[in-house]
Order: sequence, then structure tokens, then C-alpha cells
Amino acid sequence: MKNKIQRKIDLKTKPLGSLGVLEKIAFQIGTIQNNLSPTLLNPALVVFAGDHGIAKDGVSAYPQEVTHQMVFNFLQGGAAINVFSKQHGFNLHIVDSGVNFDFEYNKLINHKINHGTKSFLTQKAMTAKEFQTCLKKGEETVKSIAANQTNIIGFGEMGIGNTSSSTMLMSYLCDIPIEDCVGKGTGVAGEQLKHKINILEQSETFHGRLDNLEEIFSTFGGYEMAQMCGAMLEAYKQNMVILIDGFIATAVFLAATKFKPGIKENAIFCHQSDEKGHQLLLKELKAQPILNLGLRLGEGTGCALAYPIIESAVNFLNDMASFESAGVSEKS
Amino acid sequence: MKNKIQRKIDLKTKPLGSLGVLEKIAFQIGTIQNNLSPTLLNPALVVFAGDHGIAKDGVSAYPQEVTHQMVFNFLQGGAAINVFSKQHGFNLHIVDSGVNFDFEYNKLINHKINHGTKSFLTQKAMTAKEFQTCLKKGEETVKSIAANQTNIIGFGEMGIGNTSSSTMLMSYLCDIPIEDCVGKGTGVAGEQLKHKINILEQSETFHGRLDNLEEIFSTFGGYEMAQMCGAMLEAYKQNMVILIDGFIATAVFLAATKFKPGIKENAIFCHQSDEKGHQLLLKELKAQPILNLGLRLGEGTGCALAYPIIESAVNFLNDMASFESAGVSEKS
Repeated sequence: MKNKIQRKIDLKTKPLGSLGVLEKIAFQIGTIQNNLSPTLLNPALVVFAGDHGIAKDGVSAYPQEVTHQMVFNFLQGGAAINVFSKQHGFNLHIVDSGVNFDFEYNKLINHKINHGTKSFLTQKAMTAKEFQTCLKKGEETVKSIAANQTNIIGFGEMGIGNTSSSTMLMSYLCDIPIEDCVGKGTGVAGEQLKHKINILEQSETFHGRLDNLEEIFSTFGGYEMAQMCGAMLEAYKQNMVILIDGFIATAVFLAATKFKPGIKENAIFCHQSDEKGHQLLLKELKAQPILNLGLRLGEGTGCALAYPIIESAVNFLNDMASFESAGVSEKS
Repeated sequence: MKNKIQRKIDLKTKPLGSLGVLEKIAFQIGTIQNNLSPTLLNPALVVFAGDHGIAKDGVSAYPQEVTHQMVFNFLQGGAAINVFSKQHGFNLHIVDSGVNFDFEYNKLINHKINHGTKSFLTQKAMTAKEFQTCLKKGEETVKSIAANQTNIIGFGEMGIGNTSSSTMLMSYLCDIPIEDCVGKGTGVAGEQLKHKINILEQSETFHGRLDNLEEIFSTFGGYEMAQMCGAMLEAYKQNMVILIDGFIATAVFLAATKFKPGIKENAIFCHQSDEKGHQLLLKELKAQPILNLGLRLGEGTGCALAYPIIESAVNFLNDMASFESAGVSEKS
């Protein structure tokens, strides 16, 4: 099938390879779906929200309550991810994975594990059992979306403090010093950035060596991140195309590849964010993202923004004429 | 107004600057339209097609008849630009600027100047009068589109041999050696690429120093390129947002900036192509393109592919909530 897909791409009325990255995406999606005429059905985007104990240690430019305020904003349709999801026809699902606020659940999916994690500066962020529950909840979320015939899904997150969690996850999983992984998150700089690095290095010293993936994840991760990990693994099981967003989602995806290396075949890296660690992380994953727009927002915005390019890749494969059908001379 | 637009961008519910390039685009379009709530109306894409005498000197991987065959392909809806224009709701206009073929005009706009230019290896590609007629025809094309309230327009081209024309234009206008400007076009490499460089260097020797923009353009340009130049100038006059495609369109745009330097304010550079000279050309224009997808196709495909990102920029400016309206705490 791979040869057939490549041949179909090559016979389109364009110079060989001249659609660049779009040709690679078309090939990848054709391969995932094992189909010369792949389709994208009911694209979905799930935003997992959760609070982080570490947020109270001054690692973010925003106070913790912004997490729940932004959840309200998602529910009211006012956030960036609402605007871009609407533009591209994504079904948007918002999950409370562990926000430090009591919502009245209505449009919000209630998968709350706890009112925020503990601060990993002095203890494990979550218990081993909570981590397993998160994986399960993430799996459930995707299963219910799969019932809607969705075959392409993106994941976003909201959680003040979660670039710190992701930095720790990345540093431990890739064996890269914290200072190289850390970025400005929602906007810390100067002294505040030094403080962030300092807090994270103290946390590393406190926890010391952790060899096991589950242990690393439960020590530093957020509930929203662990649920996203479970969701990614289920999306792979369902053979969906998986859209990878920015720094946090990519750190979670790195963890998912440790569980299931094959998941990479289904992943499309949507953008390279402005977070310093993201570039290193993408390199670690040998990933070439579609967009490079200096985004630094999360919420799955990169997935939504990259979607039309992915759709274009599928469209050209399905709808362009071949040299033969169009009566165009091939290369001499 | 500029301050007001920036303030509106900054008060959206997102960390400051976190939408990266999208924020710059939103600012630019708000500024062009002098409006805090800009709109994109009836996007249009014009593909100018023309033949080049130089194509018969072995500079392209494809025979000259591919130009008219591709025009048929455009008219039948089978080319990449058809697929992407349809996807994003562009009105697509195909112009015969000077193809070496006699069409029965129907959906095709007849602005034919001649049956292809002369080969600039041994003579001027077109006369000074033909060049002026081209500018006029390009202007006419955009005027008729403007009547449809279109306020955003992209330009594409089809013309076997036109990367050679663009290379010459660039080399003369930027004073950069031919060898640094030349690329593989539709797919020349190895000996064939050396031959292409050789032919272009011979042409430079033959024509020698040319100081005047009109003279440079008429010596090396194609009819489709000169009409595109006239079209860009008129689009600027109509205060449209102007979408700049790949190597050829950017070379033409460079010429347009020499006529009207202010045109840069209305231009959005859609992508960085895989053509070697394009990167240099963008640098010359201090342009930061939206996409970098290794495209090398022309036809305006980069404009169509970048369009949803531009639309997202306008959408976030119009539709996202502000910190105040959403009740979200600002940065501490």
C-alpha cells in the first residue's frame, strides 16, 4: 500500500515533491488508514484542565485561579481554542481533570481527580493510583468520542504551572538539564525565570533519581497531563490521526511513546512553539512540525491552526488530477 | 488606531504575545483597513499564465506545452490551486497573459500579449510597449475583481521557464550573482542545473548592465509576471491585503516595491518555498513568511494554504473574549 500511495502522489499534476510537507502528510494519513483515498471525519479537540501545586511556588506569571477562569472562558466560547475550533469545524470537549474549583457540570466533562496536585517541590504531585485513574479517564474520554466516527483528534491543556511539570518530565525522560528545558511559560522572565529554574532544580534535588516512567509522571505531572497521556494511547488504539500541540502536549506525547513506541506513526506534530524546550523535545522525537508561528498558548491551538494544512494534504491526494487524466506531459 | 489595535490584541484572554505571528497579522490587517474589527471579503486568486522563449533553451525539466496543458487543467479544476481554492472559498481567475497556444476563451480571461516571449538569451523578452500593456492588463484584472468587494487577493503563475526569468530579475534588482539566485525550478538538477546557470550567465553577459527597472523587467520578464506586477500595484491602490506566493511572485513583488515602496504595508508573505533564491529574496524584502512547507509549485498555492492562518488572525481579533469580558485575572 505504501508504494501505491507514493505513486498516486507522484502522478499528480505537479513537479515531483513540489508539495513538500503536504506530500509527507498525505502519505502518512494514507498509510494510517491503509487507504489510497483517506478521509478526515468529525475532527475533535479535547482540552484537559487541571491545577498544579507547584503554581503556588511562584513559577507562573498568572495566579492559579486563572485555570478555572479559563475553563469558564472555554465553556462560554471566548478563548482562542473556541475561535479556531469553530473556524475549522472541530468538536471541542472540555474536561475538568483536576481543577481547584467546584464547577456545576453541564457542558464540562467531570473527570476531576482532586482539587489540584500537590507541589512537587516537597512531595509527589499525585499518587500512583491517581496516575492510573488518570490514564483510565483519558481512555474513556477518547472512547466516547470514537463512537462519533472521529478519526482525527487533537489534545490541548489548561493548567497554570504546567510548563513547570512538563519541564521536569522532559528533563527526566530525555536526560537534559532543567535549564535547557525551561521556558517562559505564560510569560515569566528575568528574576522570575531564575526563580522558576531554581524551584525546579530544588525539586530535582529533592526527588533525586527516578527510573520508572510511571514514577516520574506521577511525581511531576498534572492530572490534565496524565489524562491526556491516556487519551493519546487510546486514540492510537483506535487508529486515529493524533494531533500534537505545543510544549506540554509534546512532553506528554514523549511519555506516551515510552508506553507505545508505535504511536509515533499516528502522530502529526502541529507546530513548534516559542517555548525553548519545545525545539529540543521535537528533536528528541525526530519530529518536523507543520507550523512555526511563535505560538505559546497551549489549549490545542496549534492543532486547530495546523488542521487546514492537513486537510489540504488529504484533499490534493483525493481531488487533484493525474498527468494522465489531465493530459499533461510528464518531465522530459 | 495602531495603539488601539495593539491594545485590543493585548487584552485578549491569552498571555501577552502568545499568538505569535497571528498577532502581527491581525495588527497588520487592522492597520490596513484602519479598523479594530477588520474583515476578509470574497478572497480572490488570480493565476497568470505565459510562455517564455528561454524555455526552449533547456532551462526547465518540462517541455513548453506544459504551460497550456496546465491552463486546461486549471480550467477543468484538476490542479493543486483548484483544490486549495475550493477548500478555502477563493474565487479563482485564470488569465492567459501570453501562452503559446490558441485557446477558445470561455472561463479563461484573454489578456494574451503574444504567443510567448522571445528568448532573452539573444534578445529582449518583450518590447517596452508590451511591458506597459501588461501593467495595464494586470490593473484591469484587479479592477474587475475589486467590483466584487474583494479586499484580499493572492497571485499565482504558470509558465514553463519562469524561474529563469525570476532569477534574472532578482539578480539584477538585488545585485546578487545568478548562481546564488538560481534554483531547481520544476526539477532540474546536476548537469541540467549547470546548463541552466550557464544559459542565464550567458544572458547576463549578452545584455550587460541595465539600470532601469522597466528595462530589466522587459528584458527578462514574462508576460504573466509583468501582468502580475500591474495587478499587485492595482491591488495596493485598492487597499487590498496582498498575498505573496513563492519565488516568482516574490520576484515580481520586489519589482512592484520599486514602483511603489508603500505596497509592502499591504503584503503578507505566505510561504518560504524550497527554491534556493527565495530565501535570499525574502531576506532582501525583510519578509517573514507564514509557512515553511518546502513547497515548490507556484500557481498561488502558498497563498491559498496560508489563508486559513490569516483568517484565524482576523477571527481571534474579532471573536476572542478580553480578560475583562471573560472575568479572567490578568498577569500578576
